[in-house]
Amino acid sequence: MSYLTHRRQLTVEWGHCDPAGIVFNSRFFEFFDHSTWLLFERALALPPAGIGAIYGVSMPLVDAKASFLLPAKLGDLVEIETTIGEFRRSSFDVRHRMWNGGRLAVEGHEIRVWAERDPSDATRLRAKAIPAEVIARLKAPG
Amino acid sequence: MSYLTHRRQLTVEWGHCDPAGIVFNSRFFEFFDHSTWLLFERALALPPAGIGAIYGVSMPLVDAKASFLLPAKLGDLVEIETTIGEFRRSSFDVRHRMWNGGRLAVEGHEIRVWAERDPSDATRLRAKAIPAEVIARLKAPG
Amino acid sequence: MSYLTHRRQLTVEWGHCDPAGIVFNSRFFEFFDHSTWLLFERALALPPAGIGAIYGVSMPLVDAKASFLLPAKLGDLVEIETTIGEFRRSSFDVRHRMWNGGRLAVEGHEIRVWAERDPSDATRLRAKAIPAEVIARLKAPG
Amino acid sequence: MSYLTHRRQLTVEWGHCDPAGIVFNSRFFEFFDHSTWLLFERALALPPAGIGAIYGVSMPLVDAKASFLLPAKLGDLVEIETTIGEFRRSSFDVRHRMWNGGRLAVEGHEIRVWAERDPSDATRLRAKAIPAEVIARLKAPG
Repeated sequence: MSYLTHRRQLTVEWGHCDPAGIVFNSRFFEFFDHSTWLLFERALALPPAGIGAIYGVSMPLVDAKASFLLPAKLGDLVEIETTIGEFRRSSFDVRHRMWNGGRLAVEGHEIRVWAERDPSDATRLRAKAIPAEVIARLKAPG
Repeated sequence: MSYLTHRRQLTVEWGHCDPAGIVFNSRFFEFFDHSTWLLFERALALPPAGIGAIYGVSMPLVDAKASFLLPAKLGDLVEIETTIGEFRRSSFDVRHRMWNGGRLAVEGHEIRVWAERDPSDATRLRAKAIPAEVIARLKAPG
Repeated sequence: MSYLTHRRQLTVEWGHCDPAGIVFNSRFFEFFDHSTWLLFERALALPPAGIGAIYGVSMPLVDAKASFLLPAKLGDLVEIETTIGEFRRSSFDVRHRMWNGGRLAVEGHEIRVWAERDPSDATRLRAKAIPAEVIARLKAPG
Repeated sequence: MSYLTHRRQLTVEWGHCDPAGIVFNSRFFEFFDHSTWLLFERALALPPAGIGAIYGVSMPLVDAKASFLLPAKLGDLVEIETTIGEFRRSSFDVRHRMWNGGRLAVEGHEIRVWAERDPSDATRLRAKAIPAEVIARLKAPG
């Protein structure tokens, strides 16, 4: 199974960097989180922030991981590539690759749950089956 | 009129610092925001996060300002001192001073509104008179 | 005197927002900081991060201020407009305006110093006269 | 082999939380990063920021991972427990557990390298054998 890939470029900002002059590790998790939202918004043709409003769900992380192969420095123009690794009944994997100057710099991996508010306790979330329509829209054409 | 002062210490972390090896400016606004919450929680003897639950309000910022007199570097132990500048009907000033090695390093100033959800439109906030009890509890004894 | 204006758009991300569902105050200072860098890089036709390398300087903040007129929510597409307020001998003002849906949402103001490493103590910065060439390049044509 | 454990408490701040009212994922990586620094500083009886100055090294991450078992909400008092998983020649594992109300909420895992500036290229780091003295000091007594 092959899924859509979302790509975006961003420039490493002064505020992303630590005293070593490279992107501080937590920033990559911010970058990847936003790329996941963008992937879903574009695949589902939703307005930004529309997933919650339209599907009544959120996509909380249960696992986040990054491997840092090469640093990214202030001013570097990097490209982040995001796709689905696998859909399961109510959870899914997202895979991120960040390229810097054509070289793979960071690999990221998220496990997320498709979750809705628990009707019996609004402060809690509970997993929900991912709609077939959502999965279909994330598939690569062809 | 003299008000209670909240003091806390914190150590400058690697992740707070920018490539110049000093605290990145936005971090001071995080530090000050949290100190304001701590001042109110302690003065009102509330559990953390209790202001919203008990008074039904939030305290959105309308103005935030900082003057950077001296840098704070990785590992510096700094002290943040927070007090009320003035209470008005539904807004108030908070003053922060950050000391580093006994020297004044950063001065901060916030203007916040005492606000509740607008009953006719839950997505909006509206200013509300600050309860006399809240002001009384923020006053310094004596 | 009229100066160049730098404009950029950004979408409010999940990670920018606080429990009220709006951009947390410190994030605006990150946005403004990066816009200042972009203004200088484009005016000076420098590669990103080239100011330090080419002019041997940094531009530390001595004052940062923001007035929050309207909130920005998850998914909002905002526009940040950045220009110079005034150049003095070795310091300058930067003015930021953030628009949300065509309405002025946040006004920012920075005072920065044109600074170089102190040759007698590399851990310190000292103010330096802003080169006439830099000022000339920041001026609006016409 | 058993190693020292560093424990610290922290209160979840407004600025740590996302629109779901829980700690945003990237913040846990900030928390864990700082806990690793604290573990080393205390074990080595170094002043803060002394590792670089005294050992001439840094400890860049090559891998960071977190599993989110339970959320942490605004105002929660959490405890972070940090210890060494394993020392290898020039890399090591750090294990973090964050407890919330006595329940395991987040498990973190870092792989870091003991690295020094490459003498032939100061912009690069290179792995270096971890001194036996460092390993000895991280060992739990008994």
